[in-house]
Amino acid sequence: MDEQRIIRVGVNGAKGRMGMIIAEGIRSERDMQLAFEADRSDDLADCIASAGADVVVDFTVPGAVFENTMAILRSGASPVVGTTGLTAEEIDAIDHELLNRNMGGIYAPNFSLGALLMMRFAEEAARYMMPCEIIELHHEGKLDSPSGTALMTADRINERAGTRRDGGGGTLEDSPRSRGLCQGSTRIHSVRLPGLIAQQQVIYGGSGETLTLVHNVTSRACFLPGVLLAVRQVLEVRGFQQGMKI
Amino acid sequence: MDEQRIIRVGVNGAKGRMGMIIAEGIRSERDMQLAFEADRSDDLADCIASAGADVVVDFTVPGAVFENTMAILRSGASPVVGTTGLTAEEIDAIDHELLNRNMGGIYAPNFSLGALLMMRFAEEAARYMMPCEIIELHHEGKLDSPSGTALMTADRINERAGTRRDGGGGTLEDSPRSRGLCQGSTRIHSVRLPGLIAQQQVIYGGSGETLTLVHNVTSRACFLPGVLLAVRQVLEVRGFQQGMKI
Amino acid sequence: MDEQRIIRVGVNGAKGRMGMIIAEGIRSERDMQLAFEADRSDDLADCIASAGADVVVDFTVPGAVFENTMAILRSGASPVVGTTGLTAEEIDAIDHELLNRNMGGIYAPNFSLGALLMMRFAEEAARYMMPCEIIELHHEGKLDSPSGTALMTADRINERAGTRRDGGGGTLEDSPRSRGLCQGSTRIHSVRLPGLIAQQQVIYGGSGETLTLVHNVTSRACFLPGVLLAVRQVLEVRGFQQGMKI
Amino acid sequence: MDEQRIIRVGVNGAKGRMGMIIAEGIRSERDMQLAFEADRSDDLADCIASAGADVVVDFTVPGAVFENTMAILRSGASPVVGTTGLTAEEIDAIDHELLNRNMGGIYAPNFSLGALLMMRFAEEAARYMMPCEIIELHHEGKLDSPSGTALMTADRINERAGTRRDGGGGTLEDSPRSRGLCQGSTRIHSVRLPGLIAQQQVIYGGSGETLTLVHNVTSRACFLPGVLLAVRQVLEVRGFQQGMKI
Repeated sequence: MDEQRIIRVGVNGAKGRMGMIIAEGIRSERDMQLAFEADRSDDLADCIASAGADVVVDFTVPGAVFENTMAILRSGASPVVGTTGLTAEEIDAIDHELLNRNMGGIYAPNFSLGALLMMRFAEEAARYMMPCEIIELHHEGKLDSPSGTALMTADRINERAGTRRDGGGGTLEDSPRSRGLCQGSTRIHSVRLPGLIAQQQVIYGGSGETLTLVHNVTSRACFLPGVLLAVRQVLEVRGFQQGMKI
Repeated sequence: MDEQRIIRVGVNGAKGRMGMIIAEGIRSERDMQLAFEADRSDDLADCIASAGADVVVDFTVPGAVFENTMAILRSGASPVVGTTGLTAEEIDAIDHELLNRNMGGIYAPNFSLGALLMMRFAEEAARYMMPCEIIELHHEGKLDSPSGTALMTADRINERAGTRRDGGGGTLEDSPRSRGLCQGSTRIHSVRLPGLIAQQQVIYGGSGETLTLVHNVTSRACFLPGVLLAVRQVLEVRGFQQGMKI
Repeated sequence: MDEQRIIRVGVNGAKGRMGMIIAEGIRSERDMQLAFEADRSDDLADCIASAGADVVVDFTVPGAVFENTMAILRSGASPVVGTTGLTAEEIDAIDHELLNRNMGGIYAPNFSLGALLMMRFAEEAARYMMPCEIIELHHEGKLDSPSGTALMTADRINERAGTRRDGGGGTLEDSPRSRGLCQGSTRIHSVRLPGLIAQQQVIYGGSGETLTLVHNVTSRACFLPGVLLAVRQVLEVRGFQQGMKI
Repeated sequence: MDEQRIIRVGVNGAKGRMGMIIAEGIRSERDMQLAFEADRSDDLADCIASAGADVVVDFTVPGAVFENTMAILRSGASPVVGTTGLTAEEIDAIDHELLNRNMGGIYAPNFSLGALLMMRFAEEAARYMMPCEIIELHHEGKLDSPSGTALMTADRINERAGTRRDGGGGTLEDSPRSRGLCQGSTRIHSVRLPGLIAQQQVIYGGSGETLTLVHNVTSRACFLPGVLLAVRQVLEVRGFQQGMKI
């Protein structure tokens, strides 16, 4: 009904696997309109100018993300950036430019609502139950161990929990290999097997009980609802918000 | 150091299985002192008067809980009640008496921190991810299905989520038996097997992902940390607080 | 080395999602050669005759499977059939034709090695541990509940276990809806949620312990290793073998 | 009915936690009779002689187990030994004595049927699906990591599977700490948290699927059915059988 409420959204990186899912997702939302689909062969500033986008979602490559984000905000659109690779200095520069223009942007390495909720709950549980351990299970093609999400989760837990005791005898550093990696007071175990996609478990031990959070990904489509939420939120943001606020 | 900070705690029902765990737990806390251990053969008011308790924890039987709670508060101690069986009228009467005396009490059917966190997270997740289903797994001796905790969890989810769609084809009411019980828009599945103690899973479905909360109980000791937390909180409460605030 | 050992394999239904995976899989096996890829527009007998296939894998549609299977065996190739829909009479007719020609075929509704192992282990465990319950979790688009695999698993367990006791109070038939479906003495619970693909759990209860078998599917590629195994086994089979022998 | 079929069973270590469960279990079996309950204060040979036991179950301490076992067999009863600590030489000596007398004994470090089935299934699955990883989760009081059962499971898997590839990039030895311990080609991860009792998961990866075996212990009573099975089997055994045959 209210013409003003329709958000015009451009997608940069629209031929990539994430970009295609996002463009399709935007098309099926009633409060959004797909303004344009750009790829590396297009001039991004031209696309924004001619299509009149309010928000541009960028899922491209690390080497192009800073330039893309600056082009988006200079064209007057709010950037929602899922591409990783921005340095701290680049983030500061983008934040500065956005604030100068009284605009907002969102930069999130993980738009999955399930992952965001898991991390938030993991942090909250650390106030009441400790210690905890993380098991992350990924397909055999994943080369890094542990996963970035596991490290980030452990950091958030440790900040909240402070240094606590650890089970199993012995100090954290000097323990058998089967006890995994110590990230602060939180141990991380990485499983890599064919037939897995991506799963993370956070297990809290308590007196006579455990509480386990399990986030399981089955397709790339898990990023879509978070991106759509960011598109709706970014127009209210000022500066370059790090991570989704849920 | 600060003599004032030591909370004197009496345990009513101290020979019961829960009471014994709680009495032992209180003994090992540095900010608490076990004032008395009473059982059905003792006069509760006398125990409180002679021992000078600040707080009395009651884990007795449904038939005695109202009388016990009134006796505790009339003796000037704050009741922490884990015994079930109070009617709405009795809860109101206790609340009234406590407020008249500018005192507080806590009534909680489940003091397990893990269960409390699971329910809180289940409610919060309902804002972002739906639908969900609950699987609760208990030992074969449990006669009621579904469990009270599963019903309470479903009610809290439904309140937050409103009525939503349900998977699997067909309406909620008219669905195959294997699809379990519909409590509002949340389905509940009950497993009863020897070798299980008590577990509840809440599984949220989303776009390309699931988030699962698993609470697993391995011993009665799971109630202790919540009871100790209630003992510390109850002196700040006014009226008869329903459920633990965490 | 041994030229005789190369099995020439044709794929019928090669443009279907399963057929494409199978054709690609055959291409990467050293002891197999992809003889032809046929679809509904091709004459299957012609394909077999001109390409000289030893084995033909059929993943087509229920309405065509009997005719296809007969065409395959009459052309002298051994059929490996993953298409469902053959009646008991049709299976008998195919078996008869194959035995007459001293040939073999394999008919398997599920070629996933994980599913086959799960069913075999579920059956073996029934000799030592009972009772058990099945939880099957599938994407919300699956219309039937319970799954065919869950019913088949329950039947195999019941055959082995005989009628046993059931937990949770009350008879099998007259029990609360949350207790799921009774298939003989085995209860089945069906979860349907977005974000799930396909999972089955078989939980055995015992004295102070449980044993759980979990089969989780993350992509259609799960059928490939079983199909390749069937291609290798079928040349030794006589008659129309029902199900994979592992 | 058949008087001959009643097995007279003595329990050595009857005041220990395992011994008490076993004595109580024997009392409730219709085909067994509890011949005696002995502890360290009793003369074992005297007990057997005066009570006339067919089988003696020994759950005592490593330092006494060899002497106990020899005393049992010399008194003419068949030993079922759950106490660990026998050396290879002692096992040989017991085997020799038993064969000389045309008798049998069973020595099993783990009588849990669930654990035995898990290990057997893990071994069988290794023929069809590889690689696999083991996660074992125990209470924080368990000092050794990994568990003996995890090591034994890995050894049985490796024997069956031979050396296979391993996921996650890099060689087995030179991998990040979060990837756990390499026992041959099988990785082991150990979790130690309060609120856990004892669980082992064996996860097999395959093409587009995983198969997971989960053994979960909730009480010491898990050993009883295996001990009772051993009591029934031992009279048919000749020599000192290592491990339960199921």
